[in-house]
Amino acid sequence: MNANVNPLRDPRDRRLPRIAGPSGVVIFGITGDLARKKLMPAIYDLANRGLLPPSFALTGFGRREWSTEQFAQVVHDAVRENARTPFDERTWAQLVSGFRFVQGEFDDDDAFDRLAETVQGLDAERGTGGNHAFYLSVPPDAFPVVLRQLARSGLSDSTGDSWRRVVIEKPFGHDLASARALDDVVSEVFPPDSVFRIDHYLGKETVQNLLAMRFANQLFEPIWNANHVDHVQITMAEDIGIGTRAGYYDGIGAARDVIQNHLLQLLALTAMEEPVSFDAESLRAEKEKILSAVRLPPDLSAHTARGQYGAGWQGGEEVRGYLEEDGIPSDTATETYAALRLDIDTRRWAGVPFYLRAGKRLGRRVTEIAVVFKRAPHLPFDLSATQELGHNALVIRVQPDEGVTIRFGAKVPGTAMEVRDVTMDFGYGHAFTENSPEAYERLILDVLLGDPPLFPHQREVELSWQILDPVINQWAADGRPETYQPGSWGPPSADAMLAADGRTWRRP
Amino acid sequence: MNANVNPLRDPRDRRLPRIAGPSGVVIFGITGDLARKKLMPAIYDLANRGLLPPSFALTGFGRREWSTEQFAQVVHDAVRENARTPFDERTWAQLVSGFRFVQGEFDDDDAFDRLAETVQGLDAERGTGGNHAFYLSVPPDAFPVVLRQLARSGLSDSTGDSWRRVVIEKPFGHDLASARALDDVVSEVFPPDSVFRIDHYLGKETVQNLLAMRFANQLFEPIWNANHVDHVQITMAEDIGIGTRAGYYDGIGAARDVIQNHLLQLLALTAMEEPVSFDAESLRAEKEKILSAVRLPPDLSAHTARGQYGAGWQGGEEVRGYLEEDGIPSDTATETYAALRLDIDTRRWAGVPFYLRAGKRLGRRVTEIAVVFKRAPHLPFDLSATQELGHNALVIRVQPDEGVTIRFGAKVPGTAMEVRDVTMDFGYGHAFTENSPEAYERLILDVLLGDPPLFPHQREVELSWQILDPVINQWAADGRPETYQPGSWGPPSADAMLAADGRTWRRP
Repeated sequence: MNANVNPLRDPRDRRLPRIAGPSGVVIFGITGDLARKKLMPAIYDLANRGLLPPSFALTGFGRREWSTEQFAQVVHDAVRENARTPFDERTWAQLVSGFRFVQGEFDDDDAFDRLAETVQGLDAERGTGGNHAFYLSVPPDAFPVVLRQLARSGLSDSTGDSWRRVVIEKPFGHDLASARALDDVVSEVFPPDSVFRIDHYLGKETVQNLLAMRFANQLFEPIWNANHVDHVQITMAEDIGIGTRAGYYDGIGAARDVIQNHLLQLLALTAMEEPVSFDAESLRAEKEKILSAVRLPPDLSAHTARGQYGAGWQGGEEVRGYLEEDGIPSDTATETYAALRLDIDTRRWAGVPFYLRAGKRLGRRVTEIAVVFKRAPHLPFDLSATQELGHNALVIRVQPDEGVTIRFGAKVPGTAMEVRDVTMDFGYGHAFTENSPEAYERLILDVLLGDPPLFPHQREVELSWQILDPVINQWAADGRPETYQPGSWGPPSADAMLAADGRTWRRP
Repeated sequence: MNANVNPLRDPRDRRLPRIAGPSGVVIFGITGDLARKKLMPAIYDLANRGLLPPSFALTGFGRREWSTEQFAQVVHDAVRENARTPFDERTWAQLVSGFRFVQGEFDDDDAFDRLAETVQGLDAERGTGGNHAFYLSVPPDAFPVVLRQLARSGLSDSTGDSWRRVVIEKPFGHDLASARALDDVVSEVFPPDSVFRIDHYLGKETVQNLLAMRFANQLFEPIWNANHVDHVQITMAEDIGIGTRAGYYDGIGAARDVIQNHLLQLLALTAMEEPVSFDAESLRAEKEKILSAVRLPPDLSAHTARGQYGAGWQGGEEVRGYLEEDGIPSDTATETYAALRLDIDTRRWAGVPFYLRAGKRLGRRVTEIAVVFKRAPHLPFDLSATQELGHNALVIRVQPDEGVTIRFGAKVPGTAMEVRDVTMDFGYGHAFTENSPEAYERLILDVLLGDPPLFPHQREVELSWQILDPVINQWAADGRPETYQPGSWGPPSADAMLAADGRTWRRP
């Protein structure tokens, strides 16, 4: 086990890239979107960057009657289509020699025995050293059976210095009780430090840059508190509808799909105190402290908002409303927009609301954290000189166009003193010649390195559900959500919720 | 008198431009560079922007035997060549009808009597209302005679509600004693609130924007103090030599020419507390407080530096050294580069050195104020992760390319944590469609409006000399300055001076 090796403390960081040791990955759900669009390209990109060992093995497990060659062709197509780095024949040849495919159903003991043989074979033929990660890119109801099979077949057992790890994707339950039940199943099979829960937002460069910005600089931290911050807005807006995800999405909704994981993690990273170091334990401890200190508003109906996108026009196209989407029951109360106000009961943040919102079919695709500052306590100007001056803000753009924008007031050129908002901008893509790795590159490498700081702990998952459960229960009691126009910024209640606090949502 | 009308408090500011009332300007030194390059174009631009009254009159006084038509032609050529706004025949026709020229020497009583008649004539013919400003664009040794003539001829006497003002250009003396002597001469003729001392840096948009930045925002002021700032560097670098200014420059040097006025004014605006308002009295009071609190270092030889540019190559051209310039004595000790450390004995700035430097034939033409912040008190990163991280800095570019740059540390894209300096930028020219008026437009308009906040008070002039006199005396005792390479950033002693404090000059 090298779970305590922290790359942020590794003196090799600067000059030598971190390279995974002998190991393999087994992917369940190999025919899914995630595998094709993210996992296969990320593995290829890691290999192309020289960060995987020559012995690296990728095993697919699925129902399809594929030969290894057919599996290799699927990966090849996925890589050609979605990889970030150029296609390199030598990288590919090295990688493809470690491909295996095992056909089977999840409840098929034989198939898992064959998988166990395959994995042992890799250790013998390729030198994967008994180190294997099992990536469960499957629906949550399949978790128990797969985990049981991994235990039964002995695949979850590590021996000596070798390791076995499991990677799971959200949803980590749909409420606190189910999250705990899921964890019971997982932890029966794998010890806590072998469980890697993916929140791919934590693998994004800008999210990690938030840590660098806050804690490597002297400029921001002194004003990062209730003395200077008026409120914080964390937004994850999509401009698309649910597409083909009806089966997954309905009954889940925006709060469970996005706020419980991504947005509460962003909140925790934005609000947390400086960790002693960036190792997993220290970082998670600080995030947990924040999540424990989150307080819901007293009137949940007034300080939250939700909606379903209606039919209408967006981007020059006529689009269906949520209730008319294929596979969606016409009376469902699932929200496609969710917003809520959270307060954080700490000395640093007392009195500073954090407004979170997430939704589909909104005006623009954007994820951002906006720290909105108080007005200067006194303006030694005419009222008229500052009437176009808003609040100062520091906006961290997570995606797209990753970067940081600062909004502040500057004098309008002219012979009178007039102050108007201007922005200054830092664009990640412009500042560095290095290309940003995809979140999944970072996260898969971290799994192979046994490096967990960027994976949420079960305790964080539970704290997040503790925050959301009362909101979701209230919504269930309140009945159906409002409808909002596609391409708008959510239902009227979302605006009303901020207006009641004397504030407005940003139009990012 | 409307000296107390403060445009920054004038509710008309936002929508209505401030327009000068009936008035005229008399320029002495009408054939000089300043008149042709700055004053005439600024007056035209103000007229073109509709900020001068229809009655406005411009009178030239000079030795040349010019007719009014010849004078008009000189102004016309200067405007065509140097005005900021496009040439407009109607503006010009209106303006030119108020031109007058009076021929004479400064010691010629008759000439000044004719000038008095001309000015009276303008009141009668054009309606200038007895409001006249006398712009002394003349060498300081001509001040006494011109001022005496203005008094003798009655030109300095205002009657009723009308006003007479005098505008003087630097140098305001060459030390404290001569500055006081000059003021004695001026204040014999004009009351203090009728004296407008031009420091054209104060008319620059970015200098005024410094006030807006500091006091209209919440982002900067909380970190604008000794808790967070390590030191401040104020630089005025020119890439040219003395050109044809030998007669003026030698015996003056960089400290007297630039530091005494421009750089100490920038220091005062950077360091001062928030004024109650931006009226002249409040603003000057705060600047004076800072200038009074400035302390020289104990060892003047060690904490100052000076140099003369040598012969060499700059910008692909062979250039002469200062001692070989036309009109410069080969044994002169006049410095073309000056740098010094100043401390400010206030609660806000205790322990934060302000480094000032000014020079000719340096690497680049730039004037900037760089507020360099301390390192974060603790970095929860590896040493190797932050070894390319410098100090955070906020740099106000006064000229050229006016704007603000913030330097901070961001994560380098990649799978390891590495923090490197990046910058974010606000460019005045990009942010606003409005063109910035020239400093002289603002300042001449302020003279006509009787609006003095952007003109230094005699007390500031004297405080500045009090700061500089001991330095200049020490230099006189220390003998000849070092030589530095053209295109470099000054003499070795300048670097040594900062190195002794564990710091380095910025290479802007």
